[in-house]
Parts: sequence; structure tokens; C-alpha cells
Amino acid sequence: MSTKKSHISSVVPTTKRLEALTDGIYAIALTLLVLNIVIPGPPSNLTSKELSQHLLSQWPVFWHYILSFVILASYWTIHHTQFHYIKRVNRRLLWINFIWLMFVVLFPFSTSLIADYGDYTSAAVFFHCNMFLTGLMAYRNWSYATKYHRFVEPDLDDEKIRMGKIRSLVTPAISLLAIAVSFFNPRLSTIPYIFIPVLIGYLNR
Amino acid sequence: MSTKKSHISSVVPTTKRLEALTDGIYAIALTLLVLNIVIPGPPSNLTSKELSQHLLSQWPVFWHYILSFVILASYWTIHHTQFHYIKRVNRRLLWINFIWLMFVVLFPFSTSLIADYGDYTSAAVFFHCNMFLTGLMAYRNWSYATKYHRFVEPDLDDEKIRMGKIRSLVTPAISLLAIAVSFFNPRLSTIPYIFIPVLIGYLNR
Amino acid sequence: MSTKKSHISSVVPTTKRLEALTDGIYAIALTLLVLNIVIPGPPSNLTSKELSQHLLSQWPVFWHYILSFVILASYWTIHHTQFHYIKRVNRRLLWINFIWLMFVVLFPFSTSLIADYGDYTSAAVFFHCNMFLTGLMAYRNWSYATKYHRFVEPDLDDEKIRMGKIRSLVTPAISLLAIAVSFFNPRLSTIPYIFIPVLIGYLNR
Amino acid sequence: MSTKKSHISSVVPTTKRLEALTDGIYAIALTLLVLNIVIPGPPSNLTSKELSQHLLSQWPVFWHYILSFVILASYWTIHHTQFHYIKRVNRRLLWINFIWLMFVVLFPFSTSLIADYGDYTSAAVFFHCNMFLTGLMAYRNWSYATKYHRFVEPDLDDEKIRMGKIRSLVTPAISLLAIAVSFFNPRLSTIPYIFIPVLIGYLNR
Repeated sequence: MSTKKSHISSVVPTTKRLEALTDGIYAIALTLLVLNIVIPGPPSNLTSKELSQHLLSQWPVFWHYILSFVILASYWTIHHTQFHYIKRVNRRLLWINFIWLMFVVLFPFSTSLIADYGDYTSAAVFFHCNMFLTGLMAYRNWSYATKYHRFVEPDLDDEKIRMGKIRSLVTPAISLLAIAVSFFNPRLSTIPYIFIPVLIGYLNR
Repeated sequence: MSTKKSHISSVVPTTKRLEALTDGIYAIALTLLVLNIVIPGPPSNLTSKELSQHLLSQWPVFWHYILSFVILASYWTIHHTQFHYIKRVNRRLLWINFIWLMFVVLFPFSTSLIADYGDYTSAAVFFHCNMFLTGLMAYRNWSYATKYHRFVEPDLDDEKIRMGKIRSLVTPAISLLAIAVSFFNPRLSTIPYIFIPVLIGYLNR
Repeated sequence: MSTKKSHISSVVPTTKRLEALTDGIYAIALTLLVLNIVIPGPPSNLTSKELSQHLLSQWPVFWHYILSFVILASYWTIHHTQFHYIKRVNRRLLWINFIWLMFVVLFPFSTSLIADYGDYTSAAVFFHCNMFLTGLMAYRNWSYATKYHRFVEPDLDDEKIRMGKIRSLVTPAISLLAIAVSFFNPRLSTIPYIFIPVLIGYLNR
Repeated sequence: MSTKKSHISSVVPTTKRLEALTDGIYAIALTLLVLNIVIPGPPSNLTSKELSQHLLSQWPVFWHYILSFVILASYWTIHHTQFHYIKRVNRRLLWINFIWLMFVVLFPFSTSLIADYGDYTSAAVFFHCNMFLTGLMAYRNWSYATKYHRFVEPDLDDEKIRMGKIRSLVTPAISLLAIAVSFFNPRLSTIPYIFIPVLIGYLNR
């Protein structure tokens, strides 16, 4: 069958370069997060106290920096774990990964949006949708790669596959909750994310 | 013959570091694309609705972000596939790659140009020329590396070489069409790119 | 015991990708440091002398660029040395590294803060705290990984483990001194860092 | 002898991560070069012709972008070739590389300086000094690593070592000439660099 043949011929028997591209993109996205923290203009006639106050007044930026850093690091860990088992890629798996990365790359923007406009429902919803879609692609990557054990070792434990799916759905589920909270109080809408480590810890039990 | 000897002596029997540099450059170019999306000034007295409207009004920026991301990802895939077969490099092949990368690095600039000045023929032509030249270098890389099977395995299928050439010419061909459209309606000139996946799919049949 | 089992199952028998992510983040942080050096506006009616004077007047920026570059390079060297011995990671070791990286990523910000506000105690203290916490995480990484020789070769020399700990505490110790100096004269508070190479040289004797 | 022992103990028997860090830094420096090209403000009431004229008026920026890209790519090639032979590093060799990278990272700044202030002797001299010092470190790296064949294979051809030294001195020599030209006509001072490929071609004969 020609379809099957072309399918096989487009399979690349290594995932090294996709991992390298992914590591690079995460490294840059993680570093750009910090660019949101703004230094007040050129050396002006601020007092030392006013500078401290400026730094303290930026706590929402710091908080969102930490939050996004931790969540991006979690997604990277998920990618790392998934590709510990995924042994080869085809074109479609590549594109699932590209779309995943497209949402990863949006993080510095959506983080800076929610940091600057923490009181706005629209900014909060944009941020949480970014989270939701990133998590969904993490799930899609794993479910596509493990279907019929296509891209993983044939003897990979079914329980591990199932747990990987559940684990990758934790963040999207939480971000749906965060979207709901945004309509009542955007400022508090990032709080549900604090429960992610608790849930993951529970799943790893 | 001294020429031949020097030719051989400048051959490096691995492509790992060129691939690493390329992955790094693509990772950064892909991430910088998103910097074009602008957040309205410092937290001002916008209403939540006005913020939503601002975000929605940026749809050309988002559209060009997605377009450039997808096309850069395609070029990366082409590079990935080509270097799956290319086993060594010499100085000239290195420089073909550097010129290719020089056009890749221009993408964040030309994307932001067309996103901001979508109604201007000059901006659209600049963007499509960037596409055209990037694709041409992809073709050049493959045709140079496979000539006399110099830098690939001697038993690499001639059909695969030919298909690789055709595939790498799809985007440049489309961008010539896009240049033509730019002179009539710059705003619509990015539409031809939508046909790329269709054409590639047809070729992979 | 289920706890022990889950502990083992989350161990990844390679550190390659964590090293790749780390190298990427250091590369970007090191490069962003230089973005603090500012070019006077658009080509204006400066004389050549005024331009030279502007460049010379930026000496604190250049000095802090060099200082942060050297210290980040030292931390990278420490990471490099530690992971020369560390053979595998688990979730907790990953997170120790993420927190370490979180402080690394802050360097471009805190460097630009102290470069612009060198006379302010608050800016200097922020910078030195960044140093202190980065160094502390370097220590934590090594002490966690080497405890019971969990993540290193079982025959790794105890003396090497001890020396690695002492070496990673040099910078945090110096930065505590720098914090103290900041309260008297912030401008001079970076001088203690000059003694780091002397101390490291003494330890390597 | 304790000195000798510590010397040996600090040798790391691989250069992989230094190469990864270097590739990352070059990738970012090459990509940041393009950030100098400026897009005129927010979509304003420019005519299409005025936009073309603006783009054309930026030719010095494009020219310096290409020049710096080509020269950074050459330095990367030199690094690549050198580390094809260098098999291990010690602390001193690491630091020679860090200083080399410190000058590489300055390129986006000095390129933007000379692009904006092409008529100013001080800007041109700054740029050419950056070139000169980068090249000097390339030379230093090779001469240190090959002395007594310490860090290269014992059977590496002496002629190759000598040619590597000469080749790495081409750019510094040219940049001394460029510094001299800067004092007469800064605008023409980048022209000598055009002779680099000619000289390198002559050396590779």
C-alpha cells in the first residue's frame, strides 16, 4: 500500500534534533519571562527608598515570573519524560510538537499581559487559555505517540502510558478552573495553579 | 593535485555542531517572532473591553506569527531531513548553510514588517523575498550536498534526492506567486502559502 | 515500599537534556547581559568626542557586564563539573536545578539594576542576594546529588565531594560580605568578588 | 608534585558542553544582530514609497548586519575546526574560551554602534577593536591548546597547527588596518574586511 509506505519512509529513527530544538525554545522562553520586570527609566532622582518601593510594587510581575517559570519547567519535564520513551518521529508527530512549541513561545507574552493587566478578565482568560492549550498538546503528543505503541518501545507498560496521559491533563484541568475564576476575580485566578504540585504528588504516590 | 587535497582536508566528518548551531538559531528566531505582539503601554485606564478590543485588533500580528512559525518550522524540518542524509561538511557547504541561516534570522524582522504594514506592497514584497531566498538556499544545500553523492551515503536513492529537490522548491515557487499578488493586493498576498501543505501532501503521496 | 518504588521509577538514567537546557539558558543569560549597554538615541548631532565620552561614561555598565559574565561563567563551570560526576536525575534533583536556573535567569535584570543604580543600597542588595541564592542552589545541587552517592558513581572520592561543596560556597560567602558592604558604600560593594579567583586558586592548590 | 596533580585533576576529558554553550551563544549573537534593523514607529500615514525609502535608507544597517554575520560565522568555523582537534579542556582553556565568548557577545552592540554612527571614528574604532580582540582570543585558544600537544592528539601534524595559527591571525591583522583607516575615513573602514576571504582562500591553496 502506497500510503503505508510513505508513512514509514517519513519516519525519522531519532528524536535528538527535535529535543535540541525544544530545549532551545524552552531555554529562550524561560529567559524572556524575566524581561517583563521593568527598571524605572534612566538613573533619575529617585531616593533609595523609592527604588525599593518600585521593586516591591512589581510583586505581581515577580509572582507571574515564578508561576510561568515553574509551569514551563513542568511542561519541559513532561516533554523530557515523554521523549525518554518516544524513539522515533514522523511528520505528524513533528507537527504536534511544533504546535505545542507555538504555545510555549507565547508564554512570555501572555505572562507579561497578565502581569500588567492582572485586574482584567480578558488578560487572565488569555493567559489561562495559553496554559490550557499547551497542556492539551502535551496530552495529544503522548496519546498519539503511544497509540498502538507506534513510536515507543513495544514493551512499554500500559499503566505508564495511562499515567502519562492523566499527568499531562492535570494542568489543563486546573486552567479550566482558573478561567472560571477569572470571570469572578481575575486577580485570584492564578491561585488554582498552586494545587498542581499537590495533585502531581498525589498521582506519583 | 593540491586543489583536490585541500578540498578533502577541509572536510569535517561530522555535521553535529552545524546542526546544533542551526537548532539554536531556529529556536531563537521562532521565539523572537512573538515579540512583535505588543502590549498597550503601562497599566492605564483601559476598560476590560478596550483591552479585549486591543488584543483582537492585533489579529494580523497573530496571523503572521502563526504563518511565519509554521513556515520556519517547515524549513527546520527540511534541514532536519536533509542532514539525516548528509554525513559530512566542507567549507563551501558550511557557507551555504550560513547564508541559509542569514535569511532565517531575518524572519522576525520581515514578519514584524508585514504585520505592521500589511497594506504596503513594499513590506509584502520584502517578506516574500525573504521566503523565496530562504527556500532557494534549502534547495541549494540539498543539490550541492547530493551532487556526485559527495556528502551523502553513496547508496542514497536517486529518487529520494530528486524528491528532496522538488519538495524544497515548493515554498520558493509559492512565494513568487505571493510577490505577484502583492502588487495587486498586499493584504491578500500571504494566502498562497496556505496551499503549501496541500502541495507537500500531494508530493508525499 | 511504594514510596521507594515511585522514587526509583521517576529516576531518569541520563542528564543530557538537563545539561542542554542549562547550556541554552546560560548562553542566553550571558548574551542578554550585554543588552544593558545603551546606545545614545538615533543618529543625532553628537560630536565624535561626545560619543566617546558617552561610551566612557558607561564604564559602570561595562564593569558590571564583565563581572556578571565572569560569575555566570563560574557557575556554569561548577554545573559542568558537578554533572561530569552526576549520572542520573530524579524529579527532586530536576527541581533543584530549575530553581538554580530561575536565579541564573534573573542575572540580566539584577545586573542592569546595579549598573543603573550603583549608588543605591537597595539595588546592590538585590544583586548580591541574587548571587547568594544562585550559589546556594549550586551547593544544594551537589550536596543532594552526592548524599549516599545516590546520583554519582559509588566510587567517587569523598574528598572530591567535600571540595566541591566548599568550592560552591565561596561565592555565596563573598556575596554575604558584599551585602554588608552595600549598607556602607553600594558603589564599592562589588569589589569583594575580585577575591573569588584568589580563593578558588587557593582551594585548587 | 602537587601542582602537576591538581593540573591534571582539573582536566575534563570532553569538550562537548563547552561546544554546546558556544553554539548557543553564537546562535543568539547572530540572531540579535538583526534587531538593529528598525521598523518605523507604529503604522502611520507613510506612503508605500516612503516605506521603501525608509528600508533603502537603512542600507548601512543591512551592510553591517551582513558583515558581522559573516565574520561571526567565520569565528564559529574557526572554533569548530579547533575543537575538531581539541580533545579535552582544563580550567585555563575554559577561561580562554569564556573571554573569547565575552567578545563574541559584544558584537550585537558594536555592530549597532557602527551602523548608527558610521561617520564617527570612535564608533568605528570600538567595532574594529572588538574584531581584533575576538581574533586574538581565537589565536590564543589554538596556541594554548596545541602547546606540547597538551589538549590535542599527540600525532597532530605540526604543519596543521602552524596553519591554524596563521589563519586565526588574518582577521586581527585586517582589523588593525581597519583601525588605521578609521582615523582617516570611518565610513570606509569596514572595506578591508572584504579581503579576508581572499586571504583565507590564498592560505587554503
